[in-house]
Amino acid sequence: MIDLALIGIGTGNPDHLTAQAVRAMNQADLILLPRKGDAKSDLIDLRRTICAQLLTAPVRVVEFDLPVRGAGGDYLGAVHDWHAAIAAVWQTQIATHLPHGGQLALLIWGDPSLYDSTLRIADRLMQAGMDVAVRMIPGITSIQALTAAHAMPLNRLGEPVTITTGRMLRAHGWPRDAGTLVVMLDGNCAFATLPPDGIAIWWGAYLGMAHEALIHGPLAQAGPRIAAERAALRARHGWIMDIYLMRKEQADAS
Amino acid sequence: MIDLALIGIGTGNPDHLTAQAVRAMNQADLILLPRKGDAKSDLIDLRRTICAQLLTAPVRVVEFDLPVRGAGGDYLGAVHDWHAAIAAVWQTQIATHLPHGGQLALLIWGDPSLYDSTLRIADRLMQAGMDVAVRMIPGITSIQALTAAHAMPLNRLGEPVTITTGRMLRAHGWPRDAGTLVVMLDGNCAFATLPPDGIAIWWGAYLGMAHEALIHGPLAQAGPRIAAERAALRARHGWIMDIYLMRKEQADAS
Ligand SMILES: C[S@@+](CC[C@H](N)C(=O)[O-])C[C@H]1O[C@@H](n2cnc3c(N)ncnc32)[C@H](O)[C@@H]1O
Ligand SMILES: C[S@@+](CC[C@H](N)C(=O)[O-])C[C@H]1O[C@@H](n2cnc3c(N)ncnc32)[C@H](O)[C@@H]1O
Repeated sequence: MIDLALIGIGTGNPDHLTAQAVRAMNQADLILLPRKGDAKSDLIDLRRTICAQLLTAPVRVVEFDLPVRGAGGDYLGAVHDWHAAIAAVWQTQIATHLPHGGQLALLIWGDPSLYDSTLRIADRLMQAGMDVAVRMIPGITSIQALTAAHAMPLNRLGEPVTITTGRMLRAHGWPRDAGTLVVMLDGNCAFATLPPDGIAIWWGAYLGMAHEALIHGPLAQAGPRIAAERAALRARHGWIMDIYLMRKEQADAS
Repeated sequence: MIDLALIGIGTGNPDHLTAQAVRAMNQADLILLPRKGDAKSDLIDLRRTICAQLLTAPVRVVEFDLPVRGAGGDYLGAVHDWHAAIAAVWQTQIATHLPHGGQLALLIWGDPSLYDSTLRIADRLMQAGMDVAVRMIPGITSIQALTAAHAMPLNRLGEPVTITTGRMLRAHGWPRDAGTLVVMLDGNCAFATLPPDGIAIWWGAYLGMAHEALIHGPLAQAGPRIAAERAALRARHGWIMDIYLMRKEQADAS
């Protein structure tokens, strides 16, 4: 029997962890840390730092190489294959390090419920017949890190907010009925595909981390600056994680 | 000069506070705690508990009575008047307890960016000519508390999510293009106004707190159970805070 804790660790600042998250880390028998290849070594370094700073109990910390996602035209198909490969690696690690069961913890970037597939991968273990009970510990998301960094509200007073991906924005344009739009997982400046009039943007990269970068303004002016800054930062650091919020002027108000 | 920290405290569980939030509390000269009237005394009790448990520095903690929002037909007008009244009370408290300026902290339920007006009220102080610098410390939102309690993802794989209010859902129905919908600030079971076919609901009340209650299932069956449980819990405790997530079956998939 595996008791699996998915622990939200926030978005890069070890001070984002909650007391609940720190306790769950210390209760684990085993913490598995994924290595994602050279370019993103900052990310494994950060998880190592979090373990070094916050573990006070004798928890075993084991690193493993995360399988790489296949490219290929079929996006969802490639994602499913990738999840299957990760589930297989977990099974091997569990068989090696927790052969008699116990408490396994995974440190999840941001919050485990937001554009994260760990829960879906855990489901695969259960479908494969493993006895796994999952517990989720919430963490600060990159959305909250973005609004905090810009000291701004997420929603306009009493109005809805839509969260989407760069892929969706590029494929389907601005969602109907959305006044505020948060875009995540955008490798390619999908905001540049929108007619910019009447749209303002608040952008942030490496939120909570040492290289944190922020830009905001009307999309027509800020968009090109963000695209240039994004390319420069990515070249300098070898990787980038960024997120942005856009608001459309209301048709019936100022 | 007032340095105002809006500190997200999560949704009822003192263990939801981050290390950053605890540090910001301890750096304050003054923490103002709002009293919201008898029915919600649990909420001031919780803030008192958080201060008692987490303050290690000699921070002054002052309680004040939060003005009550007028009813009246014009919702936005009533909200604006209410914000003006709260801003006036803050000004009095600041003049009394921080006449020479300093660090003021407010403990914000959940995250300060999500359906919270403290930032807008702080803007009023600045517009009134006060020298105020605002800092936001992110906190765990009730959305993350909900998904963690149900151990479920917020989004379907790669798909968008819309966050809205009970008021909006009742007035405008299910937003076009939304597959996943989170509803907050719903005093009146707005889900009951939807044709329930093909919709599943995950509901939570008092998340993170001792009375936490959870219900989920197809809306046709779970909806009436939620309405009954909500009324019973509200009668028992004198107040309720609840939130829910609904998903629509995809037209083109199972
Ligand atoms: C796979 S998703 C994981 C999101 C995460 N679970 C969360 O709660 O924020 C990765 C995306 O989150 C956003 N993101 C995560 N961390 C970020 C950071 N520190 N700065 C900017 N964006 C970030 C980016 O949009 C990135 O493409
Ligand atoms: C004024 S909004 C504040 C939201 C808060 N800033 C957050 O980040 O969750 C209040 C609404 O949040 C939701 N909420 C807040 N705390 C909750 C809790 N502990 N359990 C269930 N719902 C909660 C309810 O929908 C409630 O009507």
